[in-house]
Amino acid sequence: MGKKIAAILTDLFEDSEYTEPVKAFRDKGHDVINVGLEAGKTVKGKKEGTEVQIDKAVSDVSVQDFDALLIPGGFSPDQLRVDENAVEFTADFVKSDKPVFAICHAGQLLVTAQVLKGRRFTGYKSIEQDIKNAGAEFVDQQVVVDRNLVSSRNPGDIPAFIEESLKML
Amino acid sequence: MGKKIAAILTDLFEDSEYTEPVKAFRDKGHDVINVGLEAGKTVKGKKEGTEVQIDKAVSDVSVQDFDALLIPGGFSPDQLRVDENAVEFTADFVKSDKPVFAICHAGQLLVTAQVLKGRRFTGYKSIEQDIKNAGAEFVDQQVVVDRNLVSSRNPGDIPAFIEESLKML
Repeated sequence: MGKKIAAILTDLFEDSEYTEPVKAFRDKGHDVINVGLEAGKTVKGKKEGTEVQIDKAVSDVSVQDFDALLIPGGFSPDQLRVDENAVEFTADFVKSDKPVFAICHAGQLLVTAQVLKGRRFTGYKSIEQDIKNAGAEFVDQQVVVDRNLVSSRNPGDIPAFIEESLKML
Repeated sequence: MGKKIAAILTDLFEDSEYTEPVKAFRDKGHDVINVGLEAGKTVKGKKEGTEVQIDKAVSDVSVQDFDALLIPGGFSPDQLRVDENAVEFTADFVKSDKPVFAICHAGQLLVTAQVLKGRRFTGYKSIEQDIKNAGAEFVDQQVVVDRNLVSSRNPGDIPAFIEESLKML
């Protein structure tokens, strides 16, 4: 049976880190709900300007509504993490032990949510020191699985990221 | 006598965090040299598309060439910090005790340069946890001066940022 996956994103998300996992999830019969700062708003990707309409405001959802969380990268996570609801939702998800799929700059949201201590994790090269300083072990490989966390470094890692994410659904 | 100030930046810098301090420095008779990833390249601001031509590649300069360093924010610092020369140049500057003026996301470059431990520092709200995790004391005020470091949070703090920066030249 299909699972309900929240994709949390805002403007300047890395297009392919949203579009490719979402296509793969939907192809397998899962539902993807776009969660953002404001319901009804259209957000745009960084490189290709992909338009995504936000279904639900993060202030109106909770971890109980979903089975998994996808956090695409780009400059979206850095903007999401100034929003307390987005940070709390992310923290709750990681602590719930439901699957969290984090790629590229997604780790920024997890750093602010203070949920990386003692975890094995990877992310975009620029945030390597942030991940280490947050108390995680930074692993430089295409996909890292640590209990409920699946993480990858950049768009080149998407196939491996999708493969491990699907295994967890 | 005028001082030589390096402004380190790349695409998607926060326009006003470059243009306003640079105008203030030049009005007082100081020289500003634009340092980036590639000499001759034109980089563009995030909000207004301000065009800035890079005078010198960071791989071709060293702290001995300048009297002070300005790091504008926006999404520029996160892109600069994947470049080893930019990280080393920034680290050398902070350690030299020459003035470093850091605003908004500039702290990201200082986190990767591993020079914030034990310092009093501020920056954009999104990087607050990164600054704390790097071992600095995050101070939520418009401008923070700690020995050779002048830091501010966002474009609203620019007047105070300029005032304290000028005092140090």
